[in-house]
Amino acid sequence: MNGADDPLAELVALLGRLPGIGERTATRLAYFVLTQDREYAGALASSLESLHDRVRRCASCGNFTSAERCRICTDPRREAGVLCVVARVPDLVAIERAGSYRGRYHVLHALLAPLDGMSADKIDLEALTARIRDEDVREIVLATPLSVEGEATALYVAQALRTSGVRVSRIASGIPHGGELEFADQVTLGRAFEGRKDV
Amino acid sequence: MNGADDPLAELVALLGRLPGIGERTATRLAYFVLTQDREYAGALASSLESLHDRVRRCASCGNFTSAERCRICTDPRREAGVLCVVARVPDLVAIERAGSYRGRYHVLHALLAPLDGMSADKIDLEALTARIRDEDVREIVLATPLSVEGEATALYVAQALRTSGVRVSRIASGIPHGGELEFADQVTLGRAFEGRKDV
Repeated sequence: MNGADDPLAELVALLGRLPGIGERTATRLAYFVLTQDREYAGALASSLESLHDRVRRCASCGNFTSAERCRICTDPRREAGVLCVVARVPDLVAIERAGSYRGRYHVLHALLAPLDGMSADKIDLEALTARIRDEDVREIVLATPLSVEGEATALYVAQALRTSGVRVSRIASGIPHGGELEFADQVTLGRAFEGRKDV
Repeated sequence: MNGADDPLAELVALLGRLPGIGERTATRLAYFVLTQDREYAGALASSLESLHDRVRRCASCGNFTSAERCRICTDPRREAGVLCVVARVPDLVAIERAGSYRGRYHVLHALLAPLDGMSADKIDLEALTARIRDEDVREIVLATPLSVEGEATALYVAQALRTSGVRVSRIASGIPHGGELEFADQVTLGRAFEGRKDV
C-alpha cells in the first residue's frame, strides 16, 4: 500500500528482489524509469528478456560469454599455462578490473559450504584437471574468497591437485591497501604477520 | 572491457543509468539476474516493457495510476477538503508511508527553477484552482521540498491562491527526529528557532 497503483507496485516488488535494493531504493528506481522516455524502459526490458538466451558459460573456463569461448580464452595475448581459479564470474571481473593478472581463468561457479548443502561433489574438478593436462598448465592461482567457504574450497582444490605436478598458489591475505591496523580484525592481522616478507 | 562479453556489458550500461547505481553495483545486479532463474528476468522485462502503457497520471491529482483516477482520489475514507501539494509522486509515496496525513493530494510534476529553464508557466495552477472550486477545498498544505526550488514553488503557489479564500499552509521545517543540533546546518537551525512552539 504505497499510495500508487499496481503496475508500479509490481515493478517495485521485482526490483526489491535485487541484492542491496530495499523497498525505498526500488521505489526510487521505478519512478526514475517512469519519468524517463519509454525507449529506456524498452531497452532495459529487451536486454533482460534476452539475457539468459544470449549469455552462456565459456566452454573452456566457465566465464559468461555470448560465444562458444570467452574473450579471455580466445585472446592470444593472455599468458597460457597459468589459470586463476575463482568461485564466481564477478570475482573474475574484479580481477580483470585490477589489471595485474595476465593469465587465464577457471570459474568453479560453486564454493564448498557443507552446512548449506554445497558439498565437494558440486565442485567440478574434472574440468580443471582436463585443462591442466590439455593446456599444459604450470601454475594454478587459487583466488576463491578469503572466507571460511573460500578457504575450504581452496584447500580442497589444492589437495586434489597435489599429485598433478603443477604449482598451486593462493592469493595473499593481509591488511588492505590504505587500511588502518587499528580497525583490522584479528584473523586479518594474524594473516598479515604470517605472510610477512623480508624488505 | 570488463572481461565478460557484450550482452552483459549492455545490461550493465543500462542499469548504470539508474540513479545511485554505479558501474560496480550495475555489474553486481546484472550477475544476480543472470544467476536467478530466467522467470525472474522475464517478469522484470515484461514489467518494464509495459510500464509506460499501464501507468498514467490520475485525472484528478496527477498521482500515477493504472485507472482513470488513483486509489487515493477514489477512496471515500480520505478527507475531502484538504489537498497536499507535492512536487513529485515519490514525495506523495513518502507522505503515505508516514501515514499521518488523511487528505488528498495534488502533484505538480514540476518545481520552479528559473535557472534550469523551469519557469512559472510550467506550474499548472489552473488544475489546482479548478479543484479548489469544484471539490470545496478549505485547506492547501504545501509540501514541496524545503530546497530553494521547493520554497520558491511554495511561495509562488501561496501567492497565486491568496485571493481564493482557502487556508494555505506550509509543512514545518526544523531539526529532524533524532537529529543532533551539532550537525544541523545554519538554515535548519534558524528555521527551528523561527518555528518554535510554546510548551
